[in-house]
Amino acid sequence: MTKIASLFADPSTLSKDALEHGTTFAPKFDANGLVTAITIEEGTNNVLMVAFMDAQAIALTLETGFAHYFSRSRGKIWKKGESSGELQHVRQMRTDCDQDAIVLTVVQSGHGAACHTGRKSCFYRQISLVDGKPVLQDAGQPQLFDPKDVYKS
Amino acid sequence: MTKIASLFADPSTLSKDALEHGTTFAPKFDANGLVTAITIEEGTNNVLMVAFMDAQAIALTLETGFAHYFSRSRGKIWKKGESSGELQHVRQMRTDCDQDAIVLTVVQSGHGAACHTGRKSCFYRQISLVDGKPVLQDAGQPQLFDPKDVYKS
Repeated sequence: MTKIASLFADPSTLSKDALEHGTTFAPKFDANGLVTAITIEEGTNNVLMVAFMDAQAIALTLETGFAHYFSRSRGKIWKKGESSGELQHVRQMRTDCDQDAIVLTVVQSGHGAACHTGRKSCFYRQISLVDGKPVLQDAGQPQLFDPKDVYKS
Repeated sequence: MTKIASLFADPSTLSKDALEHGTTFAPKFDANGLVTAITIEEGTNNVLMVAFMDAQAIALTLETGFAHYFSRSRGKIWKKGESSGELQHVRQMRTDCDQDAIVLTVVQSGHGAACHTGRKSCFYRQISLVDGKPVLQDAGQPQLFDPKDVYKS
């Protein structure tokens, strides 16, 4: 995969105009070598999850068509679904104006659950003000799998 | 606004179960005091932009109903649209399983452009492999305003 990773341009070598309007893909990695990745469902555009990608995760995703991320907690590349079977088939990848974020449009396979809690989306709780105090309210997404069954150690 | 900010719980005081399944809003700020904010358009769910929020930006957003972010480049709170007039009316805020990201569902006012380039969304370029090399292709979003007219110094 380093074939592709080595082809990423260095954004510091590009003008602001080239970075924002050009055809050169030059992901602007943060101090930890990561860009933000937002994963949405094809068709509904529902936000499924937010994660991070390093150069290798981007390259593997482009090469294989399956979403790969970089796990900050585990410190390594992670093929989404490698434990749970909930693979993500990538239909489209887009980057933003300053190239420090990527939106992945995917078809979620397996049970259709992107979240490790078994829900389709990680964003299953709404933030509301109740008597001036922020509280979380479950938006009622069903659990599509039981994490205890899926993540056996 | 510190009234609300001071009401945010400290996620380190919560169990994993309470953090992921409870009703306590305990945003898990990174080392810079930020969470990732993904802003989507009400109705279409189009991803408009990705930014960051600190505690004060979250509090101001909850209190005022207008999206506020924290600008890392300028090092300060930023009310979206304060320069451009492209305000974002927040219809819903959700957080994710581990509470380190927020999805804002908004109605984009002004010209309807969330991006400083004048486009509705910052994600106006697709990443494609052409002859094994990643290149960006403009997805054809129209410019809804001319940045030169809007961002006069």
